[in-house]
Amino acid sequence: MKRSLGPQSILYPTPTVVVCTYDPEGRPNMMTAAWAGVACSSPAMVSVSLREATYSHGNVQMRKAFTIGIPSEDQWREADHVGMVSGRNTLKFKTTGLTPKRSEHVDAPYVEEFPLTLECKLFQTHELGLHTQYVGEIMNVLVDEDILDENDNVDIEKLRPIIFSPGASVYHGVGQLLGKARTNRKLERTEGSGE
Amino acid sequence: MKRSLGPQSILYPTPTVVVCTYDPEGRPNMMTAAWAGVACSSPAMVSVSLREATYSHGNVQMRKAFTIGIPSEDQWREADHVGMVSGRNTLKFKTTGLTPKRSEHVDAPYVEEFPLTLECKLFQTHELGLHTQYVGEIMNVLVDEDILDENDNVDIEKLRPIIFSPGASVYHGVGQLLGKARTNRKLERTEGSGE
Repeated sequence: MKRSLGPQSILYPTPTVVVCTYDPEGRPNMMTAAWAGVACSSPAMVSVSLREATYSHGNVQMRKAFTIGIPSEDQWREADHVGMVSGRNTLKFKTTGLTPKRSEHVDAPYVEEFPLTLECKLFQTHELGLHTQYVGEIMNVLVDEDILDENDNVDIEKLRPIIFSPGASVYHGVGQLLGKARTNRKLERTEGSGE
Repeated sequence: MKRSLGPQSILYPTPTVVVCTYDPEGRPNMMTAAWAGVACSSPAMVSVSLREATYSHGNVQMRKAFTIGIPSEDQWREADHVGMVSGRNTLKFKTTGLTPKRSEHVDAPYVEEFPLTLECKLFQTHELGLHTQYVGEIMNVLVDEDILDENDNVDIEKLRPIIFSPGASVYHGVGQLLGKARTNRKLERTEGSGE
């Protein structure tokens, strides 16, 4: 039975990413966000939406740069914490014990302990409503070597990213392999009548 | 050990969504996309990026509307198929046996068998490069009642969405619950030195 819930900002899965910026004093800051996604393949781009009220929002505007860190499931408490407190009154690198490093590609820091980082230059800014959507061009991807597979692709089972569920507001890990993409040009129909 | 991979369009997890549109003849079409994410909480918005070469790209432009369906893991073969063939020469509702229904809120169809659908009106169009990013305002969320929890939130363990891994190009299901969001205002530090 279908039910209409009205307008809701949900999608499944959403990622759990940590946006890192320098503040006006040059101090590294970070915040967790889930309103993010790949935006373009060429040039490689990612978008992330931040509320204007956040400290990071102004930092991105000022430096025209940010990094996106993908924490691993062991780091879900730190990621959650970083999304709850503001860099205006909390030095989150102190409270988490995480280590800020300076990106070699853009004017932003990244978290050394996170297994994957996208180093982004601000490309476009879209005012949508409560959130501003920042589109960043990915200048470099920085990874821990041990999360790569034999073809130098990221192995999601080694990365173990955190899945966020809007609404219920819970975190999950990644589950079982379903299959390889682009293998179903022909479908073996087993059920369904179609139109 | 950190390694630089250069620019790559990756993020983990990315969703596996099916964008549904009407074509110029009013026939329902669908395509699978992974470059998508929530874009704004209020108004509720989602963004999805499509290549100009796709049939769906023009359909969105023409109708100023689309729906985003979230297939369940049992439907991963259909979702994969729909991302491999073009609606220009394939009636994908026929090849998959899925059922198109007309949205009551926007000028687009949706897939009856998918447990979750976002009904979207085109809000902004951003030309980024190979991909055009469409931002849609979510006019309604349509769900199968049996994927809701006791608070009428979507239960991701019942929805069982499909996680796509860029690069390795594989699909995974959702794994174990890690914890509840917004519960780590204070962290119990166990390791790490910070700066």
